[in-house]
Amino acid sequence: MDHSARFSVEYRIRAGSKNEAHQFAEKIGTEQSVEMPLAVVPPSGKKSLPEVHSVTQLNDDLWTASLSYPISLFGDDITQFLNVLFGNISLLHNIKITNIDEEVFKKSFYGPEFGIEGLRKKLNVPERALSCTALKPIGLSPGELAENSYQFTMGGIDIIKDDHGLANQQTADFRARVTACVQAVRMGEQISGKKTLYFPNITTSPAYVLDRFHEALELGADGVLISPQLTGLEMLHTLSSRGHLPVMAHPAFSGPYVIHESHGFLPDLYYGKLWRALGADAIIYPNAGGRFSFSRETCKRINQRARDKFHTFNASFPTPAGGMNMQSLPDQITHYGNNTIYLIGGNLHEQKAGLQEATKQFQNLLSEYE
Amino acid sequence: MDHSARFSVEYRIRAGSKNEAHQFAEKIGTEQSVEMPLAVVPPSGKKSLPEVHSVTQLNDDLWTASLSYPISLFGDDITQFLNVLFGNISLLHNIKITNIDEEVFKKSFYGPEFGIEGLRKKLNVPERALSCTALKPIGLSPGELAENSYQFTMGGIDIIKDDHGLANQQTADFRARVTACVQAVRMGEQISGKKTLYFPNITTSPAYVLDRFHEALELGADGVLISPQLTGLEMLHTLSSRGHLPVMAHPAFSGPYVIHESHGFLPDLYYGKLWRALGADAIIYPNAGGRFSFSRETCKRINQRARDKFHTFNASFPTPAGGMNMQSLPDQITHYGNNTIYLIGGNLHEQKAGLQEATKQFQNLLSEYE
Repeated sequence: MDHSARFSVEYRIRAGSKNEAHQFAEKIGTEQSVEMPLAVVPPSGKKSLPEVHSVTQLNDDLWTASLSYPISLFGDDITQFLNVLFGNISLLHNIKITNIDEEVFKKSFYGPEFGIEGLRKKLNVPERALSCTALKPIGLSPGELAENSYQFTMGGIDIIKDDHGLANQQTADFRARVTACVQAVRMGEQISGKKTLYFPNITTSPAYVLDRFHEALELGADGVLISPQLTGLEMLHTLSSRGHLPVMAHPAFSGPYVIHESHGFLPDLYYGKLWRALGADAIIYPNAGGRFSFSRETCKRINQRARDKFHTFNASFPTPAGGMNMQSLPDQITHYGNNTIYLIGGNLHEQKAGLQEATKQFQNLLSEYE
Repeated sequence: MDHSARFSVEYRIRAGSKNEAHQFAEKIGTEQSVEMPLAVVPPSGKKSLPEVHSVTQLNDDLWTASLSYPISLFGDDITQFLNVLFGNISLLHNIKITNIDEEVFKKSFYGPEFGIEGLRKKLNVPERALSCTALKPIGLSPGELAENSYQFTMGGIDIIKDDHGLANQQTADFRARVTACVQAVRMGEQISGKKTLYFPNITTSPAYVLDRFHEALELGADGVLISPQLTGLEMLHTLSSRGHLPVMAHPAFSGPYVIHESHGFLPDLYYGKLWRALGADAIIYPNAGGRFSFSRETCKRINQRARDKFHTFNASFPTPAGGMNMQSLPDQITHYGNNTIYLIGGNLHEQKAGLQEATKQFQNLLSEYE
């Protein structure tokens, strides 16, 4: 490792003066590196010290501070990278991470293994937007979930994912559920004449997620769903590095890192850049105008970060969700375009025509915008 | 499993009227369970539905809502329990979890394996408060870290933990570091004539934490340090269930769940109750008057939750930290008492007398309050 290699992080911080802002920036740097008074850092600890590059006023009491850290602080441990980013300072106030040096992702990150192109190839859908739905609710038996999978598949859906709450409940344990749903999807494909991908939820005890990933693979699943903020964010990287199955990431438990204006990460940086660098092939995020509170502009910025050039990383599929419905779909497509997975859950169940027919309408709508 | 068994969660929410508060509570319940419009929940999904027990006004626009959920929503998967608690609603605003039914912890949680009594027994210290310090900074070689461990041990320290940023950096990789520090501590004990425990940091890729735990055990470590919000919270439960080594939990990356007044968890509920239920033998939290922002009252409530009767669970050792120093120690002891681990890091390095002598003064101070 090049011990002189460094990476920079940009923070939006609150301070009453330039001097105060500079002190705050230095405090951040110390907290995230040597974490001891500078006067007593021994010689061999000095190379761990960050540098405050610049402090620029944004408005009255908001400042942008740019700090550079030695890469040797984390080596190649991504979890420790996350710790350097936001470990201790997560416990302070008024620190919003607004950018992370692209260079730092070059060495230890790989980005999505499949991404937009890979998923399109699996589905043989080169241009149009993709459809996705969720198997729900918790409480249904494997047979009932399989029956729904069958209906969605006959309707021609692109991707079926488990509800992110389906774990290993008695009503539909993991093995029974995945076995039944894979079989139902494969049967449905015979009738639809097109490919449908099934992504079971493998979120569980972090120490056993990899076991469940391999079980999903063995049972013939086409990808997996995971809530990385419940399993430890780095899990995305570990799964993606395996390269066997596409990974769809769900935002459960991630809210507090992104929803607060003055503290945490910018949502597009967190979902669009960090989750992509970690290897999410599809990134589910709370859509504007649904049950959650992101603005349309925030959603567009997430889409951009997920898709735009970023090293040699494959693009991730942005997957807006959370209260999406058939009625607003045309408007969504106008805003977000075709390199998007549209995830409609409960609303498909509300269509009077039944799941299969509703799915066909969903597909037809997407085809109209091809 | 008893399918009718339920558990309740209390939320502090913001709403303009009782009606609005009730609707908000129902929205929370739906989001955290069936996650689909109630009108289309199929018969076998109905048993997953939560119930709004009560909605009580706290003041103008603050309300306490109590909801009960079927235990079958998570079965025995602790990660899914965390998802039911705060998964999707983490992405909303103005939902503060203020209490969780004690009953729910009875079945699937075990609490600390060692806790206050177990750690006291290992150290043969029945009454007085315990001392702890951190090996730092990142950048030191195994030899330098071992030399510091030796000095602390000769000074009679109770617990030495790795800095939470020590991972597997080239400057001191895990195996070399733990081997050297264990040896140094065992040598130092010959001189001090008392026991010192060494807890290396095993925080890394969640899928490999268990490997590192076993490596620490094999190398003769006396416990481990982990940042559960970086590895996935449930990891505490998995490690504690092994029962081989005490687990000290560090709050890195956990800030956003606790620091916001109106959203997240009450700090004492999160650190004192949840982390204890998950099995943390010692709970590090950001102390009042240090570098972070908790109030003295909040810290006292965390201590209470960590120590007070809670089922048959062992008590966890509250471990206030973050800018603790020798000067304020007597005041801290007056406030927090002896069933506390006092963690002084950088300030020991600031003592002119050197690490060994500074540690002796630290121990003497604790003995005075025995």
